Amino acid sequence: MNRYKSVIAYDGSSFSGYQIQPNGRTVQGELEAALQKLHKGANVKVAASGRTDAGVHAIGQVIHFDSPLEIPEDKWPTALNGLLPNDISLQKTEKVHPDFHARFSAVGKEYRYKIYTSSYRSPFKHMYECHYPYALDLDAIKAAIPSLLGTHDYTSFCSAKTEVEDKVRTIHSIELIQKHDELEFIFKGNGFLYNMVRILMGTLLEVGTGKKSASDMGWILSQKNRIHAGKTAPAEGLYLWKVYYSSSNEEEEVI
Amino acid sequence: MNRYKSVIAYDGSSFSGYQIQPNGRTVQGELEAALQKLHKGANVKVAASGRTDAGVHAIGQVIHFDSPLEIPEDKWPTALNGLLPNDISLQKTEKVHPDFHARFSAVGKEYRYKIYTSSYRSPFKHMYECHYPYALDLDAIKAAIPSLLGTHDYTSFCSAKTEVEDKVRTIHSIELIQKHDELEFIFKGNGFLYNMVRILMGTLLEVGTGKKSASDMGWILSQKNRIHAGKTAPAEGLYLWKVYYSSSNEEEEVI
Repeated sequence: MNRYKSVIAYDGSSFSGYQIQPNGRTVQGELEAALQKLHKGANVKVAASGRTDAGVHAIGQVIHFDSPLEIPEDKWPTALNGLLPNDISLQKTEKVHPDFHARFSAVGKEYRYKIYTSSYRSPFKHMYECHYPYALDLDAIKAAIPSLLGTHDYTSFCSAKTEVEDKVRTIHSIELIQKHDELEFIFKGNGFLYNMVRILMGTLLEVGTGKKSASDMGWILSQKNRIHAGKTAPAEGLYLWKVYYSSSNEEEEVI
Repeated sequence: MNRYKSVIAYDGSSFSGYQIQPNGRTVQGELEAALQKLHKGANVKVAASGRTDAGVHAIGQVIHFDSPLEIPEDKWPTALNGLLPNDISLQKTEKVHPDFHARFSAVGKEYRYKIYTSSYRSPFKHMYECHYPYALDLDAIKAAIPSLLGTHDYTSFCSAKTEVEDKVRTIHSIELIQKHDELEFIFKGNGFLYNMVRILMGTLLEVGTGKKSASDMGWILSQKNRIHAGKTAPAEGLYLWKVYYSSSNEEEEVI
């Protein structure tokens, strides 16, 4: 048996999220269906670095699966992409040690959140970026970022629906890139709680419109209560961009 | 009665083309339905600069319509976008002279054709760019362009399904922009025949793979026969980018 690690990209627009469920089309469901075809009907279980919600996209989601097939690493994308729907694409596969686990071996993650601020909705962006046609004070947003970094209990920035108990995480950086009428926020950390990036993003947008101030961030963190942070930003702007493993096999951006 | 000229953008992926038809969702159908709602049930006929086929996109399609409503120019996008589906967006409206006609007043058009050459399909580009993961000799393509420019009878580059009789058109320029693994071809001319940009593009791609040579272009034109040109390139890469009117009211790129 071989363990394979793959980087996959998907357009989350038409999925009920990553994780398989009884009703609704899921990324995991499509991956396992394609692998089952390739394995002549045998079930192949896929493990991912983490779930993504309905509408959330992935550029560098990482999965692993075990297979008796001896397909060369560079032939896997061709073999599987023909069996996958057009909104999922396998970008890269490598054979890894049987101890490798897409979720438990991950040491960090990068998410990106895309916003466009043009006055009118774009027919090409409405599923891929959050439309936010309101004046934003970017300096206020930048001033709010430092107090959100570091190691904290991020309960205030986590959906109450989570089942995770330990809510301490480390955010290494939040970077803002501005191009014309588009904003891209890059979040890097050792891990993120359920809805954490979208709640951080929604809170930063409220700082940008003056509803909250940069100096509120420390207090919100200290309250350990979701009701003090901003609204959860919409799913369509969010991308799981990259999953980091030990330095020797860091994922490249592949799309 | 006022005549209004509007610039609209649409994602052609889910349309059976621009022009209204008995079956199938069309851009014109959606525009007229939205205008009918705004006019309390009265029919409002929309005229466009030209049709686009199923799957073809528009960044700067231009339409005109007549309306008794005295809505200020800058309020039209807000008024109509709320009644339009997410894959059509009205970007700009101005009141024009009653002699203005979106089609007959046009003096030129710009189309763009987008290609991505990465080895594997992208889940984010498959509806918006043509996937062409084959080696292309861009120098050969550039060498083929000059003989396609100027004023010619473009019968060889026009779908046999056309009903237009005069197939003489002028192509001002064909420009190639390369960014990483993406190619963008910019076609500017006084007008384009049915499928003309896609057939020009398909022919240039065959030059890029060596199936045709740059020196074949003049001969293909001279034959005035569609069978000598290359295959029609897929719809998803094509964008109606801009429509030019007399110099005083040239359209801006608005998206």
